[in-house]
Amino acid sequence: MAHIALPDGVPGILGPMQFRPETAKPLNDLAEVLLRGESTLTRGERELIAAYTSKLNSCHFCHTSHATFAALQLDDGWAVIDAVVENPDTAPISPKLRSLLHLAFKTQQGGLNVTDDDVAAARDLGATDIEIHDTILIAAAFCMFNRYVDGLATFAPPERSDYAEVGEMIVAHGYTAASPPLPAA
Amino acid sequence: MAHIALPDGVPGILGPMQFRPETAKPLNDLAEVLLRGESTLTRGERELIAAYTSKLNSCHFCHTSHATFAALQLDDGWAVIDAVVENPDTAPISPKLRSLLHLAFKTQQGGLNVTDDDVAAARDLGATDIEIHDTILIAAAFCMFNRYVDGLATFAPPERSDYAEVGEMIVAHGYTAASPPLPAA
Repeated sequence: MAHIALPDGVPGILGPMQFRPETAKPLNDLAEVLLRGESTLTRGERELIAAYTSKLNSCHFCHTSHATFAALQLDDGWAVIDAVVENPDTAPISPKLRSLLHLAFKTQQGGLNVTDDDVAAARDLGATDIEIHDTILIAAAFCMFNRYVDGLATFAPPERSDYAEVGEMIVAHGYTAASPPLPAA
Repeated sequence: MAHIALPDGVPGILGPMQFRPETAKPLNDLAEVLLRGESTLTRGERELIAAYTSKLNSCHFCHTSHATFAALQLDDGWAVIDAVVENPDTAPISPKLRSLLHLAFKTQQGGLNVTDDDVAAARDLGATDIEIHDTILIAAAFCMFNRYVDGLATFAPPERSDYAEVGEMIVAHGYTAASPPLPAA
């Protein structure tokens, strides 16, 4: 059971978002610009970084939902996600994306862990400053979302298939559309 | 030196916010509603939770800036902040605020660490569901802000006095006013 009185049967982050629409809005706005806004990283690549970070934080809801969003937007679907979760070093991804996942890993462990060498390696493989910035902020943001979802003990549906419907919705309409209406002023 | 090409001489989070105004806006909107929006927790109490979490994450810039904002808005100023950093169990704060700082501590360690007993203790001391929600989200959000600031190796002015000017500005005008203009569409 969730730690506070959330709406019944609403999975994961959607419960606290309905409970507190005032904070839901900037949270969804942030997810929208980071994961779906204009970028030289594809939406699938950015969702993969989010899903990977959420796995590192053991957040089942965020991992499975963002892995679903990634699978729907990557050519190789779930296969590449499973391979990344197993071992990013051997997963069938580009060297640049591998270096960005390494930045996400270091960021998840704590910002001070990201070294000049980590960043230089990504840059040598073609990562731009904006891609490096966005990767670090995606990883940092999921260190927030994961703690928010699990710190309130929200309900996480167990199966991948449970996330298919919300996956289609997010891919089609985005995060901003998921914000509940603000209370009247 | 910062890991990416940030504007010269701009401290802490303000550099990446100028570098990427598209993400700065929702980040500032989130800080505004969480730390300064309508709440039964005072602005000083909420800034104290932010400063405490940032200290746990060893983020000098975020700790010192939010401790400054807290000191400006709490009756006892820096004395209570130093006491909380030293040991929340003996700091001269209300039992309810102490229980909320404990929730922030558990959240910083990872969302799954927050237990029913932690939340029940806060509730027994008078914390409401919204206060519990906001405390967990503040702690989670600073696990993001801290990683963002340090993951990019931004410049952190060393002394408390270096933060006095931005402190007066944030207390007077808030976070939303600190967002750089968005690029023309």
